Amino acid sequence: MTRRSALMIIPVDASEERADFADTFARADAAAPALSVGELSTQRGDGVFESIGVVDGHAQEVMPHLERLVHSARLCDLPEPNIAQWKQAIEIAAGDCGAGEAVIKLILSRGVEHGPTPTAWVTVAPAADFSAARVDGIRVVTLDRGYDLHVAERAPWLLLGAKTLSYAVNMAALREAHRRGADDAIFLSSDGFVLEAPTASLILRVGDRFVTPAPNGGILHGTTQLSVYEHLAERGFDVGYAEIPASDLGKADAAWLVSSVRLAAPVSRIDDHELPVDAALTADLNAYLLSPRD
Amino acid sequence: MTRRSALMIIPVDASEERADFADTFARADAAAPALSVGELSTQRGDGVFESIGVVDGHAQEVMPHLERLVHSARLCDLPEPNIAQWKQAIEIAAGDCGAGEAVIKLILSRGVEHGPTPTAWVTVAPAADFSAARVDGIRVVTLDRGYDLHVAERAPWLLLGAKTLSYAVNMAALREAHRRGADDAIFLSSDGFVLEAPTASLILRVGDRFVTPAPNGGILHGTTQLSVYEHLAERGFDVGYAEIPASDLGKADAAWLVSSVRLAAPVSRIDDHELPVDAALTADLNAYLLSPRD
Repeated sequence: MTRRSALMIIPVDASEERADFADTFARADAAAPALSVGELSTQRGDGVFESIGVVDGHAQEVMPHLERLVHSARLCDLPEPNIAQWKQAIEIAAGDCGAGEAVIKLILSRGVEHGPTPTAWVTVAPAADFSAARVDGIRVVTLDRGYDLHVAERAPWLLLGAKTLSYAVNMAALREAHRRGADDAIFLSSDGFVLEAPTASLILRVGDRFVTPAPNGGILHGTTQLSVYEHLAERGFDVGYAEIPASDLGKADAAWLVSSVRLAAPVSRIDDHELPVDAALTADLNAYLLSPRD
Repeated sequence: MTRRSALMIIPVDASEERADFADTFARADAAAPALSVGELSTQRGDGVFESIGVVDGHAQEVMPHLERLVHSARLCDLPEPNIAQWKQAIEIAAGDCGAGEAVIKLILSRGVEHGPTPTAWVTVAPAADFSAARVDGIRVVTLDRGYDLHVAERAPWLLLGAKTLSYAVNMAALREAHRRGADDAIFLSSDGFVLEAPTASLILRVGDRFVTPAPNGGILHGTTQLSVYEHLAERGFDVGYAEIPASDLGKADAAWLVSSVRLAAPVSRIDDHELPVDAALTADLNAYLLSPRD
Protein backbone atom coordinates (compact mmCIF):
# COMPACT_ATOMS: atom_id res chain seq x y z
CA MET A 1 0.00 0.00 0.00
CA THR A 2 1.46 3.32 -1.12
CA ARG A 3 0.78 6.46 0.89
CA ARG A 4 0.02 9.48 -1.30
CA SER A 5 2.59 12.03 -0.13
CA ALA A 6 4.69 14.99 -1.15
CA LEU A 7 8.12 16.30 -0.26
CA MET A 8 8.95 19.94 -0.89
CA ILE A 9 12.59 20.56 -1.82
CA ILE A 10 14.65 23.72 -1.34
CA PRO A 11 16.97 23.44 -4.35
CA VAL A 12 20.68 23.83 -3.67
CA ASP A 13 23.50 24.55 -6.10
CA ALA A 14 24.33 21.63 -8.41
CA SER A 15 27.95 21.66 -7.20
CA GLU A 16 27.13 21.52 -3.49
CA GLU A 17 28.49 18.28 -2.00
CA ARG A 18 26.95 16.98 1.21
CA ALA A 19 26.40 13.69 2.95
CA ASP A 20 22.83 14.64 3.86
CA PHE A 21 20.28 17.03 2.35
CA ALA A 22 17.57 16.28 4.92
CA ASP A 23 17.33 19.91 6.05
CA THR A 24 16.37 20.95 2.50
CA PHE A 25 13.28 18.71 2.53
CA ALA A 26 9.87 19.34 4.09
CA ARG A 27 7.11 16.78 4.10
CA ALA A 28 3.81 18.09 2.78
CA ASP A 29 0.28 16.75 2.67
CA ALA A 30 -0.31 15.92 -1.02
CA ALA A 31 -3.95 17.00 -0.74
CA ALA A 32 -3.40 20.23 1.24
CA PRO A 33 -2.42 23.62 -0.19
CA ALA A 34 1.35 23.68 -0.74
CA LEU A 35 1.90 26.05 -3.66
CA SER A 36 1.10 29.73 -4.04
CA VAL A 37 -0.88 31.10 -6.98
CA GLY A 38 2.30 32.95 -7.99
CA GLU A 39 3.87 29.63 -9.03
CA LEU A 40 5.11 29.79 -12.63
CA SER A 41 4.49 26.05 -13.03
CA THR A 42 0.82 26.76 -12.57
CA GLN A 43 0.67 30.09 -14.43
CA ARG A 44 2.71 29.06 -17.47
CA GLY A 45 3.61 25.37 -17.28
CA ASP A 46 7.12 26.71 -16.79
CA GLY A 47 9.23 23.91 -15.40
CA VAL A 48 10.35 20.34 -16.06
CA PHE A 49 9.41 16.95 -14.67
CA GLU A 50 10.03 13.21 -14.58
CA SER A 51 7.78 10.27 -13.71
CA ILE A 52 9.55 7.31 -12.12
CA GLY A 53 8.02 3.86 -11.78
CA VAL A 54 8.28 2.21 -8.37
CA VAL A 55 7.87 -1.53 -7.85
CA ASP A 56 7.60 -2.89 -4.30
CA GLY A 57 9.35 0.18 -2.94
CA HIS A 58 12.18 0.15 -5.49
CA ALA A 59 12.41 3.29 -7.67
CA GLN A 60 13.37 2.20 -11.20
CA GLU A 61 16.17 3.73 -13.29
CA VAL A 62 16.70 6.66 -10.99
CA MET A 63 19.91 7.90 -12.62
CA PRO A 64 18.61 7.97 -16.23
CA HIS A 65 15.58 9.94 -14.99
CA LEU A 66 17.77 12.37 -13.06
CA GLU A 67 20.08 12.81 -16.04
CA ARG A 68 17.09 13.63 -18.22
CA LEU A 69 15.82 16.08 -15.58
CA VAL A 70 19.21 17.84 -15.72
CA HIS A 71 19.05 17.85 -19.54
CA SER A 72 15.51 19.28 -19.52
CA ALA A 73 16.51 21.95 -16.98
CA ARG A 74 19.44 22.99 -19.17
CA LEU A 75 17.24 23.32 -22.27
CA CYS A 76 14.85 25.51 -20.25
CA ASP A 77 17.60 27.71 -18.71
CA LEU A 78 16.65 26.50 -15.23
CA PRO A 79 19.30 26.19 -12.51
CA GLU A 80 20.87 22.74 -12.74
CA PRO A 81 19.40 20.27 -10.24
CA ASN A 82 21.73 18.79 -7.63
CA ILE A 83 21.66 15.08 -8.49
CA ALA A 84 22.61 13.86 -5.00
CA GLN A 85 19.90 16.01 -3.42
CA TRP A 86 17.19 14.71 -5.75
CA LYS A 87 18.43 11.15 -5.35
CA GLN A 88 17.98 11.42 -1.59
CA ALA A 89 14.49 12.91 -2.04
CA ILE A 90 13.56 9.95 -4.26
CA GLU A 91 14.85 7.51 -1.62
CA ILE A 92 12.65 9.15 1.00
CA ALA A 93 9.67 9.10 -1.37
CA ALA A 94 10.27 5.44 -2.19
CA GLY A 95 10.07 4.76 1.55
CA ASP A 96 6.38 5.71 1.38
CA CYS A 97 5.77 3.02 -1.24
CA GLY A 98 4.65 -0.33 0.05
CA ALA A 99 4.11 -3.46 -2.03
CA GLY A 100 2.85 -3.07 -5.58
CA GLU A 101 3.36 -0.37 -8.16
CA ALA A 102 3.61 3.36 -7.52
CA VAL A 103 4.76 6.48 -9.29
CA ILE A 104 7.20 9.10 -8.04
CA LYS A 105 6.97 12.41 -9.83
CA LEU A 106 9.80 14.95 -9.77
CA ILE A 107 8.88 18.57 -10.49
CA LEU A 108 11.29 21.46 -10.91
CA SER A 109 9.39 24.72 -11.50
CA ARG A 110 10.87 28.11 -12.31
CA GLY A 111 9.43 29.16 -8.95
CA VAL A 112 7.24 31.99 -7.84
CA GLU A 113 7.03 34.94 -10.25
CA HIS A 114 9.85 37.42 -9.47
CA GLY A 115 10.96 34.99 -6.73
CA PRO A 116 14.59 34.17 -5.98
CA THR A 117 14.69 30.40 -6.59
CA PRO A 118 12.98 27.55 -8.36
CA THR A 119 10.32 25.58 -6.54
CA ALA A 120 10.84 21.84 -6.44
CA TRP A 121 8.99 18.86 -5.08
CA VAL A 122 8.51 15.14 -5.32
CA THR A 123 5.18 13.33 -5.09
CA VAL A 124 4.29 9.70 -4.54
CA ALA A 125 1.02 8.06 -5.52
CA PRO A 126 -0.21 4.52 -6.18
CA ALA A 127 0.01 3.64 -9.88
CA ALA A 128 -3.15 2.99 -11.86
CA ASP A 129 -3.82 -0.64 -12.75
CA PHE A 130 -2.38 -1.15 -16.24
CA SER A 131 -2.60 -4.95 -16.31
CA ALA A 132 -5.25 -4.99 -19.06
CA ALA A 133 -3.23 -2.62 -21.27
CA ARG A 134 -0.12 -4.78 -20.74
CA VAL A 135 -1.89 -8.01 -21.74
CA ASP A 136 -4.73 -7.15 -24.14
CA GLY A 137 -2.92 -4.23 -25.76
CA ILE A 138 -4.01 -0.75 -26.74
CA ARG A 139 -5.52 0.80 -29.86
CA VAL A 140 -3.75 3.90 -31.12
CA VAL A 141 -4.41 6.57 -33.74
CA THR A 142 -1.80 8.67 -35.52
CA LEU A 143 -2.02 12.43 -35.01
CA ASP A 144 -0.14 15.24 -36.74
CA ARG A 145 2.24 16.98 -34.30
CA GLY A 146 2.52 19.94 -36.68
CA TYR A 147 6.34 20.04 -36.57
CA ASP A 148 8.69 18.73 -39.22
CA LEU A 149 11.27 16.12 -38.24
CA HIS A 150 14.21 18.51 -37.94
CA VAL A 151 12.60 21.58 -36.37
CA ALA A 152 14.28 21.03 -32.99
CA GLU A 153 17.71 21.59 -34.53
CA ARG A 154 16.83 24.98 -35.98
CA ALA A 155 14.43 26.17 -33.26
CA PRO A 156 15.63 25.07 -29.80
CA TRP A 157 13.22 27.54 -28.15
CA LEU A 158 10.45 25.06 -29.01
CA LEU A 159 11.95 22.96 -26.16
CA LEU A 160 11.17 19.73 -28.00
CA GLY A 161 13.86 17.69 -26.27
CA ALA A 162 12.82 18.88 -22.80
CA LYS A 163 10.18 17.21 -20.64
CA THR A 164 8.42 20.44 -19.69
CA LEU A 165 5.31 20.96 -17.60
CA SER A 166 3.60 22.44 -20.69
CA TYR A 167 1.75 19.24 -21.50
CA ALA A 168 -1.64 20.64 -22.56
CA VAL A 169 -1.12 19.45 -26.16
CA ASN A 170 -0.12 15.95 -25.01
CA MET A 171 -3.31 15.77 -22.94
CA ALA A 172 -5.45 17.13 -25.82
CA ALA A 173 -3.99 14.46 -28.12
CA LEU A 174 -5.03 11.75 -25.66
CA ARG A 175 -8.57 13.18 -25.51
CA GLU A 176 -8.68 13.22 -29.33
CA ALA A 177 -7.56 9.57 -29.37
CA HIS A 178 -10.36 8.66 -26.95
CA ARG A 179 -12.88 10.54 -29.12
CA ARG A 180 -11.76 8.34 -32.01
CA GLY A 181 -12.33 5.19 -29.99
CA ALA A 182 -8.64 4.60 -29.30
CA ASP A 183 -6.60 4.39 -26.12
CA ASP A 184 -3.56 6.39 -27.12
CA ALA A 185 -1.93 8.32 -29.95
CA ILE A 186 1.26 8.28 -32.00
CA PHE A 187 2.45 11.69 -33.13
CA LEU A 188 3.61 12.08 -36.74
CA SER A 189 5.78 14.91 -37.99
CA SER A 190 4.24 17.25 -40.55
CA ASP A 191 6.59 15.71 -43.14
CA GLY A 192 5.29 12.24 -42.45
CA PHE A 193 7.67 10.59 -39.99
CA VAL A 194 6.87 8.72 -36.80
CA LEU A 195 7.72 10.57 -33.58
CA GLU A 196 6.47 9.35 -30.19
CA ALA A 197 3.30 8.99 -28.15
CA PRO A 198 2.13 11.85 -25.91
CA THR A 199 3.50 10.09 -22.81
CA ALA A 200 5.40 7.09 -24.17
CA SER A 201 7.98 5.94 -26.71
CA LEU A 202 7.14 3.71 -29.66
CA ILE A 203 9.08 0.53 -30.45
CA LEU A 204 8.33 -1.41 -33.65
CA ARG A 205 9.31 -4.97 -34.47
CA VAL A 206 9.99 -5.81 -38.10
CA GLY A 207 11.06 -9.43 -38.37
CA ASP A 208 13.75 -9.93 -35.75
CA ARG A 209 14.73 -6.29 -35.72
CA PHE A 210 13.44 -3.67 -33.28
CA VAL A 211 13.40 -0.05 -34.29
CA THR A 212 12.40 3.22 -32.61
CA PRO A 213 12.37 6.81 -33.97
CA ALA A 214 15.83 8.38 -33.68
CA PRO A 215 15.87 10.92 -30.83
CA ASN A 216 17.29 13.83 -32.83
CA GLY A 217 16.21 16.47 -30.32
CA GLY A 218 12.66 16.50 -31.61
CA ILE A 219 11.48 13.75 -29.28
CA LEU A 220 12.33 12.69 -25.76
CA HIS A 221 14.80 9.88 -25.39
CA GLY A 222 12.71 7.40 -23.43
CA THR A 223 14.27 5.90 -20.32
CA THR A 224 12.04 2.81 -20.59
CA GLN A 225 12.83 2.43 -24.30
CA LEU A 226 16.56 2.46 -23.46
CA SER A 227 16.01 -0.17 -20.80
CA VAL A 228 13.92 -2.37 -23.12
CA TYR A 229 16.65 -2.10 -25.78
CA GLU A 230 19.28 -3.25 -23.28
CA HIS A 231 17.13 -6.26 -22.45
CA LEU A 232 16.37 -7.12 -26.08
CA ALA A 233 20.05 -6.81 -27.04
CA GLU A 234 20.94 -9.19 -24.21
CA ARG A 235 18.41 -11.64 -25.61
CA GLY A 236 20.23 -11.43 -28.95
CA PHE A 237 17.80 -9.21 -30.86
CA ASP A 238 18.94 -6.51 -33.24
CA VAL A 239 17.86 -3.06 -31.97
CA GLY A 240 18.29 0.31 -33.66
CA TYR A 241 17.21 3.88 -34.29
CA ALA A 242 15.88 5.23 -37.59
CA GLU A 243 13.87 7.90 -39.32
CA ILE A 244 10.64 5.95 -39.73
CA PRO A 245 8.18 7.04 -42.43
CA ALA A 246 4.57 6.82 -41.28
CA SER A 247 3.93 4.33 -44.10
CA ASP A 248 6.24 1.87 -42.28
CA LEU A 249 3.76 1.57 -39.42
CA GLY A 250 1.70 -0.75 -41.62
CA LYS A 251 4.72 -3.02 -42.19
CA ALA A 252 5.45 -3.67 -38.51
CA ASP A 253 4.98 -7.20 -37.18
CA ALA A 254 4.38 -5.84 -33.70
CA ALA A 255 4.56 -2.57 -31.81
CA TRP A 256 4.68 -1.36 -28.19
CA LEU A 257 4.26 1.92 -26.42
CA VAL A 258 6.70 1.89 -23.53
CA SER A 259 6.80 4.26 -20.56
CA SER A 260 7.92 4.33 -16.94
CA VAL A 261 4.63 3.51 -15.25
CA ARG A 262 2.41 1.71 -17.79
CA LEU A 263 5.56 -0.15 -18.93
CA ALA A 264 5.25 -2.13 -22.21
CA ALA A 265 1.77 -1.84 -23.74
CA PRO A 266 1.45 -3.89 -26.94
CA VAL A 267 -0.31 -2.05 -29.76
CA SER A 268 -3.24 -4.04 -31.16
CA ARG A 269 -4.33 -1.48 -33.76
CA ILE A 270 -2.82 1.58 -35.43
CA ASP A 271 -5.61 3.61 -37.07
CA ASP A 272 -7.47 0.94 -39.11
CA HIS A 273 -4.57 -1.49 -39.21
CA GLU A 274 -4.78 -4.48 -36.84
CA LEU A 275 -1.54 -5.74 -35.29
CA PRO A 276 -0.95 -9.10 -33.63
CA VAL A 277 -0.06 -8.94 -29.93
CA ASP A 278 3.03 -11.02 -29.16
CA ALA A 279 1.84 -12.25 -25.78
CA ALA A 280 4.99 -14.17 -24.85
CA LEU A 281 7.46 -11.41 -25.69
CA THR A 282 5.25 -8.74 -24.09
CA ALA A 283 5.03 -10.78 -20.88
CA ASP A 284 8.82 -11.16 -20.93
CA LEU A 285 9.30 -7.40 -21.41
CA ASN A 286 6.97 -6.52 -18.56
CA ALA A 287 8.50 -9.14 -16.25
CA TYR A 288 11.84 -7.52 -16.97
CA LEU A 289 10.46 -3.98 -16.48
CA LEU A 290 8.90 -5.02 -13.15
CA SER A 291 12.20 -6.44 -11.88
CA PRO A 292 14.42 -4.08 -9.86
CA ARG A 293 16.55 -1.96 -12.23
CA ASP A 294 18.94 0.89 -11.46
CA MET B 1 -1.61 51.41 -4.80
CA THR B 2 -2.69 47.90 -5.74
CA ARG B 3 -2.85 45.16 -3.14
CA ARG B 4 -1.48 41.82 -4.39
CA SER B 5 -4.35 39.44 -3.75
CA ALA B 6 -6.07 36.29 -4.89
CA LEU B 7 -9.63 35.05 -4.99
CA MET B 8 -10.31 31.32 -5.25
CA ILE B 9 -13.45 30.44 -7.22
CA ILE B 10 -15.64 27.35 -6.94
CA PRO B 11 -16.81 27.05 -10.56
CA VAL B 12 -20.54 26.67 -11.10
CA ASP B 13 -22.41 25.47 -14.16
CA ALA B 14 -22.33 27.92 -17.08
CA SER B 15 -26.13 28.00 -17.18
CA GLU B 16 -26.59 28.80 -13.48
CA GLU B 17 -28.29 32.21 -13.11
CA ARG B 18 -27.87 34.06 -9.84
CA ALA B 19 -27.86 37.63 -8.58
CA ASP B 20 -24.83 36.94 -6.40
CA PHE B 21 -22.00 34.41 -6.53
CA ALA B 22 -20.27 35.67 -3.37
CA ASP B 23 -20.55 32.30 -1.62
CA THR B 24 -18.48 30.69 -4.41
CA PHE B 25 -15.50 32.98 -3.73
CA ALA B 26 -12.84 32.73 -1.05
CA ARG B 27 -10.16 35.34 -0.52
CA ALA B 28 -6.65 33.91 -0.44
CA ASP B 29 -3.24 35.31 0.43
CA ALA B 30 -1.43 35.54 -2.93
CA ALA B 31 1.87 34.62 -1.26
CA ALA B 32 0.61 31.76 0.92
CA PRO B 33 0.06 28.16 -0.17
CA ALA B 34 -3.31 27.88 -1.92
CA LEU B 35 -2.91 25.04 -4.40
CA SER B 36 -2.15 21.37 -3.86
CA VAL B 37 0.66 19.58 -5.71
CA GLY B 38 -2.04 17.48 -7.39
CA GLU B 39 -3.11 20.54 -9.44
CA LEU B 40 -3.06 19.74 -13.16
CA SER B 41 -2.22 23.36 -13.96
CA THR B 42 1.07 22.85 -12.19
CA GLN B 43 1.73 19.28 -13.29
CA ARG B 44 0.84 19.71 -16.97
CA GLY B 45 0.06 23.34 -17.72
CA ASP B 46 -3.45 22.02 -18.21
CA GLY B 47 -5.83 24.94 -18.12
CA VAL B 48 -6.54 28.32 -19.71
CA PHE B 49 -6.03 31.92 -18.67
CA GLU B 50 -6.55 35.61 -19.43
CA SER B 51 -4.62 38.73 -18.37
CA ILE B 52 -6.74 41.85 -18.00
CA GLY B 53 -5.32 45.36 -17.76
CA VAL B 54 -6.66 47.55 -14.96
CA VAL B 55 -6.34 51.35 -14.99
CA ASP B 56 -7.25 53.29 -11.83
CA GLY B 57 -9.45 50.45 -10.64
CA HIS B 58 -11.23 49.95 -13.97
CA ALA B 59 -10.82 46.48 -15.52
CA GLN B 60 -10.51 46.93 -19.29
CA GLU B 61 -12.47 44.98 -21.90
CA VAL B 62 -13.84 42.47 -19.46
CA MET B 63 -16.35 40.87 -21.85
CA PRO B 64 -13.91 40.23 -24.73
CA HIS B 65 -11.53 38.60 -22.24
CA LEU B 66 -14.31 36.46 -20.77
CA GLU B 67 -15.50 35.47 -24.23
CA ARG B 68 -11.97 34.37 -25.11
CA LEU B 69 -11.75 32.43 -21.81
CA VAL B 70 -14.93 30.59 -22.80
CA HIS B 71 -13.50 29.93 -26.27
CA SER B 72 -10.21 28.61 -24.82
CA ALA B 73 -12.08 26.40 -22.35
CA ARG B 74 -14.15 24.92 -25.18
CA LEU B 75 -11.04 24.13 -27.27
CA CYS B 76 -9.54 22.39 -24.22
CA ASP B 77 -12.69 20.39 -23.35
CA LEU B 78 -12.95 22.20 -20.01
CA PRO B 79 -16.35 22.90 -18.43
CA GLU B 80 -17.64 26.21 -19.75
CA PRO B 81 -17.02 29.11 -17.35
CA ASN B 82 -20.05 30.94 -15.97
CA ILE B 83 -19.59 34.46 -17.38
CA ALA B 84 -21.61 36.22 -14.66
CA GLN B 85 -19.66 34.45 -11.92
CA TRP B 86 -16.28 35.41 -13.40
CA LYS B 87 -17.49 38.95 -14.03
CA GLN B 88 -18.34 39.34 -10.36
CA ALA B 89 -14.94 37.89 -9.36
CA ILE B 90 -13.24 40.46 -11.62
CA GLU B 91 -15.26 43.27 -10.01
CA ILE B 92 -14.11 42.16 -6.56
CA ALA B 93 -10.51 41.92 -7.77
CA ALA B 94 -10.69 45.37 -9.36
CA GLY B 95 -11.74 46.68 -5.94
CA ASP B 96 -8.23 45.82 -4.70
CA CYS B 97 -6.72 48.06 -7.38
CA GLY B 98 -6.01 51.61 -6.39
CA ALA B 99 -4.72 54.35 -8.66
CA GLY B 100 -2.33 53.40 -11.45
CA GLU B 101 -2.02 50.27 -13.56
CA ALA B 102 -2.57 46.71 -12.41
CA VAL B 103 -3.16 43.30 -13.90
CA ILE B 104 -5.95 40.85 -13.13
CA LYS B 105 -5.24 37.31 -14.14
CA LEU B 106 -7.98 34.70 -14.61
CA ILE B 107 -6.98 31.06 -14.34
CA LEU B 108 -9.18 28.04 -15.05
CA SER B 109 -7.30 24.81 -14.42
CA ARG B 110 -8.53 21.28 -15.09
CA GLY B 111 -8.32 20.85 -11.32
CA VAL B 112 -6.72 18.32 -9.07
CA GLU B 113 -5.82 15.02 -10.74
CA HIS B 114 -8.78 12.63 -10.55
CA GLY B 115 -10.69 15.44 -8.79
CA PRO B 116 -14.34 16.24 -9.44
CA THR B 117 -14.12 19.87 -10.67
CA PRO B 118 -11.83 22.43 -12.24
CA THR B 119 -9.87 24.77 -9.99
CA ALA B 120 -10.29 28.46 -10.70
CA TRP B 121 -8.92 31.67 -9.31
CA VAL B 122 -8.28 35.32 -10.02
CA THR B 123 -5.16 37.24 -8.97
CA VAL B 124 -4.41 40.94 -8.80
CA ALA B 125 -0.94 42.49 -8.89
CA PRO B 126 0.53 45.90 -9.69
CA ALA B 127 1.59 46.13 -13.35
CA ALA B 128 5.26 46.53 -14.23
CA ASP B 129 6.29 49.99 -15.43
CA PHE B 130 6.12 49.85 -19.24
CA SER B 131 6.45 53.59 -19.88
CA ALA B 132 9.90 53.23 -21.53
CA ALA B 133 8.67 50.46 -23.85
CA ARG B 134 5.62 52.57 -24.78
CA VAL B 135 7.72 55.63 -25.66
CA ASP B 136 11.18 54.46 -26.78
CA GLY B 137 9.92 51.29 -28.38
CA ILE B 138 11.17 47.72 -28.35
CA ARG B 139 13.60 45.72 -30.47
CA VAL B 140 12.28 42.40 -31.72
CA VAL B 141 13.68 39.35 -33.45
CA THR B 142 11.78 36.90 -35.63
CA LEU B 143 11.70 33.28 -34.46
CA ASP B 144 10.42 30.16 -36.20
CA ARG B 145 7.29 28.80 -34.45
CA GLY B 146 7.75 25.47 -36.26
CA TYR B 147 4.13 25.27 -37.42
CA ASP B 148 2.84 26.06 -40.89
CA LEU B 149 0.16 28.71 -41.28
CA HIS B 150 -2.78 26.31 -41.59
CA VAL B 151 -1.87 23.61 -39.08
CA ALA B 152 -4.59 24.67 -36.61
CA GLU B 153 -7.32 23.76 -39.08
CA ARG B 154 -6.09 20.19 -39.58
CA ALA B 155 -4.79 19.56 -36.03
CA PRO B 156 -7.05 21.18 -33.41
CA TRP B 157 -5.40 19.10 -30.65
CA LEU B 158 -2.43 21.48 -30.93
CA LEU B 159 -4.75 23.98 -29.16
CA LEU B 160 -3.30 26.88 -31.15
CA GLY B 161 -6.34 29.10 -30.80
CA ALA B 162 -6.56 28.56 -27.04
CA LYS B 163 -4.76 30.63 -24.42
CA THR B 164 -3.53 27.66 -22.40
CA LEU B 165 -1.31 27.59 -19.33
CA SER B 166 1.28 25.66 -21.37
CA TYR B 167 3.41 28.74 -22.04
CA ALA B 168 6.91 27.28 -21.65
CA VAL B 169 7.66 27.82 -25.35
CA ASN B 170 6.45 31.43 -25.22
CA MET B 171 8.75 32.07 -22.27
CA ALA B 172 11.69 30.30 -23.98
CA ALA B 173 11.17 32.50 -27.06
CA LEU B 174 11.40 35.62 -24.89
CA ARG B 175 14.65 34.33 -23.32
CA GLU B 176 16.02 33.65 -26.82
CA ALA B 177 15.10 37.21 -27.85
CA HIS B 178 16.94 38.59 -24.81
CA ARG B 179 19.99 36.46 -25.65
CA ARG B 180 19.96 38.09 -29.09
CA GLY B 181 19.92 41.57 -27.55
CA ALA B 182 16.23 42.15 -28.26
CA ASP B 183 13.24 42.83 -26.03
CA ASP B 184 10.67 40.62 -27.65
CA ALA B 185 10.03 38.18 -30.49
CA ILE B 186 7.71 37.78 -33.47
CA PHE B 187 6.88 34.19 -34.34
CA LEU B 188 6.99 33.17 -38.00
CA SER B 189 5.26 30.11 -39.42
CA SER B 190 7.52 27.41 -40.87
CA ASP B 191 6.22 28.40 -44.33
CA GLY B 192 7.33 32.00 -43.84
CA PHE B 193 4.30 33.96 -42.63
CA VAL B 194 4.05 36.38 -39.73
CA LEU B 195 2.10 35.07 -36.73
CA GLU B 196 2.18 36.88 -33.37
CA ALA B 197 4.49 37.68 -30.47
CA PRO B 198 4.75 35.25 -27.51
CA THR B 199 2.46 37.46 -25.40
CA ALA B 200 1.21 40.15 -27.81
CA SER B 201 -0.33 40.79 -31.23
CA LEU B 202 1.54 42.52 -34.06
CA ILE B 203 0.08 45.45 -35.98
CA LEU B 204 1.91 46.83 -39.02
CA ARG B 205 1.38 50.19 -40.71
CA VAL B 206 1.98 50.38 -44.45
CA GLY B 207 1.18 53.87 -45.66
CA ASP B 208 -2.24 54.73 -44.24
CA ARG B 209 -3.26 51.11 -43.94
CA PHE B 210 -2.95 48.99 -40.78
CA VAL B 211 -2.68 45.25 -41.10
CA THR B 212 -2.39 42.33 -38.64
CA PRO B 213 -2.03 38.58 -39.29
CA ALA B 214 -5.42 36.98 -39.91
CA PRO B 215 -6.50 34.95 -36.86
CA ASN B 216 -7.25 31.70 -38.71
CA GLY B 217 -7.17 29.56 -35.57
CA GLY B 218 -3.39 29.40 -35.55
CA ILE B 219 -2.98 32.55 -33.46
CA LEU B 220 -4.94 34.15 -30.67
CA HIS B 221 -7.31 36.92 -31.62
CA GLY B 222 -5.91 39.77 -29.53
CA THR B 223 -8.39 41.72 -27.43
CA THR B 224 -6.11 44.78 -27.46
CA GLN B 225 -5.60 44.51 -31.22
CA LEU B 226 -9.39 44.50 -31.69
CA SER B 227 -9.68 47.56 -29.49
CA VAL B 228 -6.88 49.41 -31.31
CA TYR B 229 -8.54 48.61 -34.65
CA GLU B 230 -11.83 50.09 -33.43
CA HIS B 231 -10.00 53.26 -32.43
CA LEU B 232 -8.04 53.51 -35.68
CA ALA B 233 -11.17 52.94 -37.76
CA GLU B 234 -12.90 55.75 -35.85
CA ARG B 235 -9.97 57.99 -36.69
CA GLY B 236 -10.54 57.17 -40.36
CA PHE B 237 -7.71 54.72 -40.96
CA ASP B 238 -8.06 51.62 -43.07
CA VAL B 239 -7.57 48.47 -40.95
CA GLY B 240 -7.50 44.86 -42.08
CA TYR B 241 -6.38 41.25 -41.71
CA ALA B 242 -4.08 39.42 -44.09
CA GLU B 243 -1.68 36.55 -44.55
CA ILE B 244 1.57 38.50 -44.18
CA PRO B 245 4.74 37.02 -45.68
CA ALA B 246 7.78 37.56 -43.42
CA SER B 247 9.39 39.55 -46.24
CA ASP B 248 6.67 42.20 -45.75
CA LEU B 249 8.08 43.06 -42.32
CA GLY B 250 10.83 45.05 -44.06
CA LYS B 251 8.24 47.08 -45.99
CA ALA B 252 6.34 48.34 -42.93
CA ASP B 253 6.43 52.06 -42.15
CA ALA B 254 5.80 51.33 -38.49
CA ALA B 255 4.88 48.41 -36.23
CA TRP B 256 3.51 47.81 -32.74
CA LEU B 257 3.20 44.88 -30.39
CA VAL B 258 -0.06 45.34 -28.53
CA SER B 259 -1.23 43.50 -25.42
CA SER B 260 -3.51 44.02 -22.43
CA VAL B 261 -0.96 45.21 -19.90
CA ARG B 262 2.05 46.61 -21.79
CA LEU B 263 -0.47 48.17 -24.24
CA ALA B 264 0.99 49.58 -27.50
CA ALA B 265 4.76 49.13 -27.70
CA PRO B 266 6.19 50.62 -30.90
CA VAL B 267 8.75 48.37 -32.61
CA SER B 268 12.04 50.18 -33.27
CA ARG B 269 13.87 47.25 -34.86
CA ILE B 270 12.91 43.91 -36.41
CA ASP B 271 16.02 41.71 -36.65
CA ASP B 272 18.55 44.05 -38.35
CA HIS B 273 15.93 46.34 -39.84
CA GLU B 274 15.42 49.70 -38.08
CA LEU B 275 11.88 51.10 -37.95
CA PRO B 276 10.87 54.68 -37.18
CA VAL B 277 8.79 55.13 -34.02
CA ASP B 278 5.68 57.20 -34.70
CA ALA B 279 5.69 59.04 -31.37
CA ALA B 280 2.48 60.99 -31.90
CA LEU B 281 0.35 58.08 -33.04
CA THR B 282 1.82 55.79 -30.37
CA ALA B 283 0.99 58.33 -27.66
CA ASP B 284 -2.53 58.58 -29.03
CA LEU B 285 -2.94 54.79 -29.02
CA ASN B 286 -1.73 54.48 -25.43
CA ALA B 287 -3.87 57.38 -24.25
CA TYR B 288 -6.82 55.56 -25.79
CA LEU B 289 -5.79 52.21 -24.27
CA LEU B 290 -5.42 53.85 -20.85
CA SER B 291 -8.91 55.38 -21.00
CA PRO B 292 -11.75 53.33 -19.48
CA ARG B 293 -13.02 50.77 -22.00
CA ASP B 294 -15.60 48.02 -21.63
